[in-house]
Amino acid sequence: MRLFATLLFLAFLPSCPLSAQSSDSVMLKKIFSEEMLRGESYQNLEELCKKIGHRLSGSPAADKAVQWGYELMKRYGFDTVYLQECMVPKWVRGKKEICEVYSRTLKAPLGLNCLALGGSVGTGDKGISAEVVEIKSWDELEFLGVKGLKGKIAFFNRPFDNAMAKTFEAYGHCVDQRWAGASRAAKYGAIGVLVRSMTNAIDDYPHTGSMGYNDSFPKIPAVAISTVSAEYLSKKLLKDPKLQISLKTWCETFPDVKSHNVIGEVWGTEKKEEIILVGGHLDSWDVGHGAHDDGAGVVQSIEVLRLFKAMKLKPKRTLRCVLYMNEENGRRGADAYDKEVERKKEKHIAAIESDRGGFSARGFSFDTLDARFDKVKKWAPLFYPYLMERMEAGFSGVDVRNLKHHGAFTMGYYPDPQRYFDFHHTTRDTFEHVHKRELEMGAACMAMMVWLISEYGL
Amino acid sequence: MRLFATLLFLAFLPSCPLSAQSSDSVMLKKIFSEEMLRGESYQNLEELCKKIGHRLSGSPAADKAVQWGYELMKRYGFDTVYLQECMVPKWVRGKKEICEVYSRTLKAPLGLNCLALGGSVGTGDKGISAEVVEIKSWDELEFLGVKGLKGKIAFFNRPFDNAMAKTFEAYGHCVDQRWAGASRAAKYGAIGVLVRSMTNAIDDYPHTGSMGYNDSFPKIPAVAISTVSAEYLSKKLLKDPKLQISLKTWCETFPDVKSHNVIGEVWGTEKKEEIILVGGHLDSWDVGHGAHDDGAGVVQSIEVLRLFKAMKLKPKRTLRCVLYMNEENGRRGADAYDKEVERKKEKHIAAIESDRGGFSARGFSFDTLDARFDKVKKWAPLFYPYLMERMEAGFSGVDVRNLKHHGAFTMGYYPDPQRYFDFHHTTRDTFEHVHKRELEMGAACMAMMVWLISEYGL
Repeated sequence: MRLFATLLFLAFLPSCPLSAQSSDSVMLKKIFSEEMLRGESYQNLEELCKKIGHRLSGSPAADKAVQWGYELMKRYGFDTVYLQECMVPKWVRGKKEICEVYSRTLKAPLGLNCLALGGSVGTGDKGISAEVVEIKSWDELEFLGVKGLKGKIAFFNRPFDNAMAKTFEAYGHCVDQRWAGASRAAKYGAIGVLVRSMTNAIDDYPHTGSMGYNDSFPKIPAVAISTVSAEYLSKKLLKDPKLQISLKTWCETFPDVKSHNVIGEVWGTEKKEEIILVGGHLDSWDVGHGAHDDGAGVVQSIEVLRLFKAMKLKPKRTLRCVLYMNEENGRRGADAYDKEVERKKEKHIAAIESDRGGFSARGFSFDTLDARFDKVKKWAPLFYPYLMERMEAGFSGVDVRNLKHHGAFTMGYYPDPQRYFDFHHTTRDTFEHVHKRELEMGAACMAMMVWLISEYGL
Repeated sequence: MRLFATLLFLAFLPSCPLSAQSSDSVMLKKIFSEEMLRGESYQNLEELCKKIGHRLSGSPAADKAVQWGYELMKRYGFDTVYLQECMVPKWVRGKKEICEVYSRTLKAPLGLNCLALGGSVGTGDKGISAEVVEIKSWDELEFLGVKGLKGKIAFFNRPFDNAMAKTFEAYGHCVDQRWAGASRAAKYGAIGVLVRSMTNAIDDYPHTGSMGYNDSFPKIPAVAISTVSAEYLSKKLLKDPKLQISLKTWCETFPDVKSHNVIGEVWGTEKKEEIILVGGHLDSWDVGHGAHDDGAGVVQSIEVLRLFKAMKLKPKRTLRCVLYMNEENGRRGADAYDKEVERKKEKHIAAIESDRGGFSARGFSFDTLDARFDKVKKWAPLFYPYLMERMEAGFSGVDVRNLKHHGAFTMGYYPDPQRYFDFHHTTRDTFEHVHKRELEMGAACMAMMVWLISEYGL
């Protein structure tokens, strides 16, 4: 009530920078409070996680998620809600993988907890069995060559650099092993690949994730093993360099299937043609709930538009929520989206992606560092009272990044990054590991930024 | 290795602001990396939590913790390690509390999970039983007066304001109920008190904490109930305003006993008499492990000095780690410490307290807002790469705050505050809820600040 009175009061003040700043503060506080007191993002995430669960592109669960997103936005009364078709890969994990260590120093074979990498071929029932070669760098791989790798299983074991405060940078320095390891080892005759999981933690959860094959070389099966398994194997190899790994996986790739992005809009009152996009990806890996990755981004993006509706805020520009399909293993949804933007000559002034987990809000990162970045940075003090004032040069997001070529100012919502790789692409990425306040702060932070852009343009 | 070469290189550059900034960056990176790669704070916390556990002032466990802290700092080879005597209260919870709801709408009495507040008297075996009156504000209490409260149990149920981004502010707006509720209700004849737990969360963990009596009124027993219980009771009272609570607690206060602060130092090479204090409190409540509150602050403070030793850094000024006794229910350790500072005319130039949990690092808050604050704020860019650049006006800490009257620049280490009150003073405050990287980032952040102060003074 006190807020509303202040707003009324401010409405009658002459317009000047100070009062603009003050009324902006009041509005942002109103948005923040609405989310923290009556937010629905957390209950929506619970529904997505518990009723649908993980939802890999091309799976029946992904179809259900599309339906869920569509119906939810309809129910919220957005001005339009529609599906956008795209063809997506269909990869199926099949039976639980088996990875066993055979060593003269072991009485019985020892099982390692593993997950096939997304896109990998399977070994089928006969499996593969071979000696293992540990590899810590591409130089080492090249040095080993055919002599060192032919007929062997390559074990990529370059760890995260824990001295990097930004965990996504540590990920960036390691994920090439997961993506390219199989083909680079197959080039020298390796018959299979184990990859150390992409995480800062030393624990027993294998992390899946996408990999790609280079068609010039044989397609060999690739699995992730946990960091505990990787450390164990590395030590064991010192004592017994001849130890063998036996691997069985049953994954398969099927022809592409039809799927959809889900799009909802709240139309602008003054410049309807100017679009401010908020988005996350609806697909996930096929383990856990896909809660942080990227259920959080999905419910936060929907929540931005819902907040405007619930608070009866009339945005000057059009707000569009995009639930992208297939970020994880193809980016087909984003490709289809970008094509439509091109075809319809749509004008995106800004695009905010949330795909770094539902953790405590820190701010935003930007990959378009022009005058618009300078303008947005000046808003940082408005976010300061909420501990989300960080406005840094960096990455926007996999799904929105190309929109900068269509004129959009692209940015990524930036939550605290310390815990993300504890959960990323694992069975642990469940609803229970998302913190209500932290998730809501993210939705509020995005809505606050969207309100400013809608009000003032860029 | 590359860092060391850079350092050597920088050592031969002429001194100028730019190179100072650069060599400072290099040094901070070195400190940060050392902690994140070879830190011992996490293993020390595990030892404190698992071998000793909770350690309320005056308990045998608190004595063990004193011994542990002393031996650890000795083992690390600090230049001096000593104990500082203080007398502390001895309050003992006794048998598990019983709190039951009797209502005509219940077939059998319903048990609520509760914890006696620290310092409360007990009911003993006979217990108390009475009708309950819910109170949401002091105005309401005054309005009720003797007529509404005599012979009743007062139920303080003012919740945290979840629209406050800074959870410690929400705590600050509610904790008066816990501290003063009993005597203010006793003034009007209430015979017992239930207090809604101090947390943002809606869960079933009661939060204990200190309370005080006003000697002018009868001392009545006081317990905390979980927020789930508080919400339940509030709703139940709407249907049955005559419902009764039966309460049994067996807590007792004994005469004060002797205890100690534990102090370790690494001496300055140039201005040995100038002390930079880092500290946390060694005592905890008598539930959980006291992991976030304040095992984290304890191991981080020790770690700051250990890092200097391990890295063979020679501080220009003296670093002093103080493990305070009795922050939770008396502040007797800090009082004893402050007196010794006065008696010895010691010169403290800065004092950093860590007592807000072992969560992801955000920066520092300061309660001395003079030219020294301006100086320290200029260092923020050095902390920016580690996501810990926040330098805000605020509170320092319960134990160090009075040192500002002795000339110290007092500050509090500032971790992310969103999760703190999920754990504070509960059985959940265990080692398992502390995140290794986040804890270590705090130790690194504090050590980086200490290095700058040691190098440049204030």
